Amino acid sequence: MDMLTFQIDTDSKIPVYQQLYAFIKKEIQSGNIKCDVKLPSKRKLSAYLNISQNTVQAAYDQLIEEGYITSIEKRGYFVCRIDNLIKLPGFYDNEAVKTDTRQEVAFDFSYHGVDHPTFPFDTWRRLTKEIINEYDKELLIPGDSFGYHRLRAALSEYLHQSRGVNCTPDQVIISSGTEILIQSLIQLFDRDKIYGIENPGYEKLNQLFISNRAKFIPISIDDKGMVPSEVRIKNPDILCLSPSHQFPSGGIMPISRRIQLLNWANESDNRYLIEDDYDSEFKYSGKPIPSLQGIDSNEKVIYMGSLSKCISPTLRVSYMVLPPHLIKLYHKKLSYILCPVPILEQKVLCSFIEKGFFERHLNKMRTVYKKKRDTLVRALTELKRGIEILGADAGLHVLIRVPNHMTEDELIESALEYGVRTYGISKYYADKSYISKKPALLLGFATMQEDEIIKAVSLLDKAWFGSV
Amino acid sequence: MDMLTFQIDTDSKIPVYQQLYAFIKKEIQSGNIKCDVKLPSKRKLSAYLNISQNTVQAAYDQLIEEGYITSIEKRGYFVCRIDNLIKLPGFYDNEAVKTDTRQEVAFDFSYHGVDHPTFPFDTWRRLTKEIINEYDKELLIPGDSFGYHRLRAALSEYLHQSRGVNCTPDQVIISSGTEILIQSLIQLFDRDKIYGIENPGYEKLNQLFISNRAKFIPISIDDKGMVPSEVRIKNPDILCLSPSHQFPSGGIMPISRRIQLLNWANESDNRYLIEDDYDSEFKYSGKPIPSLQGIDSNEKVIYMGSLSKCISPTLRVSYMVLPPHLIKLYHKKLSYILCPVPILEQKVLCSFIEKGFFERHLNKMRTVYKKKRDTLVRALTELKRGIEILGADAGLHVLIRVPNHMTEDELIESALEYGVRTYGISKYYADKSYISKKPALLLGFATMQEDEIIKAVSLLDKAWFGSV
Repeated sequence: MDMLTFQIDTDSKIPVYQQLYAFIKKEIQSGNIKCDVKLPSKRKLSAYLNISQNTVQAAYDQLIEEGYITSIEKRGYFVCRIDNLIKLPGFYDNEAVKTDTRQEVAFDFSYHGVDHPTFPFDTWRRLTKEIINEYDKELLIPGDSFGYHRLRAALSEYLHQSRGVNCTPDQVIISSGTEILIQSLIQLFDRDKIYGIENPGYEKLNQLFISNRAKFIPISIDDKGMVPSEVRIKNPDILCLSPSHQFPSGGIMPISRRIQLLNWANESDNRYLIEDDYDSEFKYSGKPIPSLQGIDSNEKVIYMGSLSKCISPTLRVSYMVLPPHLIKLYHKKLSYILCPVPILEQKVLCSFIEKGFFERHLNKMRTVYKKKRDTLVRALTELKRGIEILGADAGLHVLIRVPNHMTEDELIESALEYGVRTYGISKYYADKSYISKKPALLLGFATMQEDEIIKAVSLLDKAWFGSV
Repeated sequence: MDMLTFQIDTDSKIPVYQQLYAFIKKEIQSGNIKCDVKLPSKRKLSAYLNISQNTVQAAYDQLIEEGYITSIEKRGYFVCRIDNLIKLPGFYDNEAVKTDTRQEVAFDFSYHGVDHPTFPFDTWRRLTKEIINEYDKELLIPGDSFGYHRLRAALSEYLHQSRGVNCTPDQVIISSGTEILIQSLIQLFDRDKIYGIENPGYEKLNQLFISNRAKFIPISIDDKGMVPSEVRIKNPDILCLSPSHQFPSGGIMPISRRIQLLNWANESDNRYLIEDDYDSEFKYSGKPIPSLQGIDSNEKVIYMGSLSKCISPTLRVSYMVLPPHLIKLYHKKLSYILCPVPILEQKVLCSFIEKGFFERHLNKMRTVYKKKRDTLVRALTELKRGIEILGADAGLHVLIRVPNHMTEDELIESALEYGVRTYGISKYYADKSYISKKPALLLGFATMQEDEIIKAVSLLDKAWFGSV
């Protein structure tokens, strides 16, 4: 080893032992010191470099630990046998990974997001501070893998009051998103199960099933939701449906059809219904529709919901109610899954519910969103262009049909030219052959203010029908 | 319909229209009103009950919406055809779902959890309040699906400084747990890929692969980690390893073996290495071992880490660094996955890192944990029972061999009788045939204080060797 090339940099912040370690390592890596070569003894090297033996020892220790050299008793330090690292010619193009950039628009009828001005920032901030002021070791101990027990109790109570869901807190599982809950169901059930999904339906479902290599079949919907006769023909095992407010069409599944599907499920041990109740809090006329789970007495319905729409999508809290026999199976097969929601969020949310803020917030949001929906519907109707508005008086989006002979892409493109982003329904079809010849667009209104809605609709009028 | 049995409860808080709705619904459900029967007109019913027509309208509207009745123009309201809901005899036993209860012990050498007294509650609390005082609409908009960009930048910087990981922020993906990251990798790669896991190794890995129906093979480890010759014999595609500090044995993989495995990976397009760097922050002598990712120039290594050990397991933040060509594939196949970590946690963590608190905390914890480890090792050694302590001077656990002819279960049972919980290594073996005849126990020391460690060890002495 040619120590002549090694110079200690006394100005450097790097400790001397590290400089020595780095030097020797480089010599070994570059092949200047061959394998099996004996390194200088600590005494000799420390004398030569005029540093302490401890410093040399530290450098040698690090090299031993990383496996560059080995120490043989009574003989000394030797360079280890290390293969050459093969460098392959780069065949991946190395351009920097580009992040997704979307064109900015003036008005975005996005389906995602919630109203900003009415978000209860002050309350949420206050509750969060209260919780963190009580920070104690509970914050450090991994809690129940199903989620914070008090939150599960608060949710089971709320779901019973508002949705007629029958369950004990033990049946509630909390997670960071509906996708994660559905993935756990895919793992819970046998791999040969076939899932029936609404066509059109929540577009992430087919992506989820594809990624998780689960079999699925699209089932048509009409204005009343999933069509039972098609379920019988296509014969899946587990249905995924949104009976309170079909996404995206907006239809409500009537009781007769709910019973038909429950009876279908009851015909076989292997059948289940997954009820996705994603926005049932927002119904603007009459009472909320009772859940499917509430009329199931045969442990066939798995009920799922999320706080994305009624509090915020960034809260990342969803929940699932499993019937008792499936909770047992979950304990058995999936006990290793930890609740991915931080305990802070769970405690704040629990406090928000227990202290009545959640109910108050929902009531306020119902009024706000109802006004927005009414404004949108009125603005579209007053255009007198014959635009058809589909779906129930509920939720945070409407579906429209535009009678101007434009295709879905043409409608979206022309709207975009006027600075308005709209969304086609075709992406919600897993089976594209079913897409109606009459295009439909989805307009989400949660994030827009009423004056923006009015302006946006007048721009759509120009885009789709020309100026008058 | 026999309206004689309907009585308005004027004291009830339930609105009259709801009482009427509930009554008619019940009559329909019980079969007292058959299907296709015509209901009284609004005018007649309102006169009969002495309530407003609007009230009857509201009740009828709700019943229509739920599908119990239908309105036929100019003819009136008719009960819908609804099947009977079939009730199956209950064959699931209905005992309440019991939650898991473990016996309380005085001393628990748990591997999970972190030291309580030194957790930076005040700093974390202060940073959290600062962030929530700045609460703005950023808190409501779903952010980057890979995670908060500033946190990704802070992590990529930290990983470079401390672990020699080479990456841009775009290559960092943040999630709520290593399990979720591994699941996304299983979805990213083709389904026929075979995963090679350390035997013994992180026990959740085989549970994950089983649940996700991915093929895996256990590969033996020795004191230097995964054995390359066995990799070549068993021929998996993707290795999952913990080279900085093998879990649970504690061995450090030397550079020669790292290069052997990298060269193995380089022989085929389909091979990758997943480096799980779960506790590399805690190395008590010398420098941290540089990451495997840092010497990989062929985009073969996926680097994974978590803040469970170095901040808190309840924070639920983990991260993964994918090589560029895999990031592109991830964007293509898994773009629907949203970051499940709430933005608040990400911002607080980012602030914690950027302001230098993270580094300060790690330095403090290194000192604290080193003391605990030294205390434990000294206490065990001073028993003079010949207890073998395995693994490097690193991490938050030690592995011990107890030369008293007891089996693993006997060791654990006897310790429990003295109020000390210890953990057997056998559960970490996916392939149990490899379990050494000499039992080994895992003792985690992170959550115990030094005096507790000393007391617990003396109790273990009594349990395992009888009192002297």
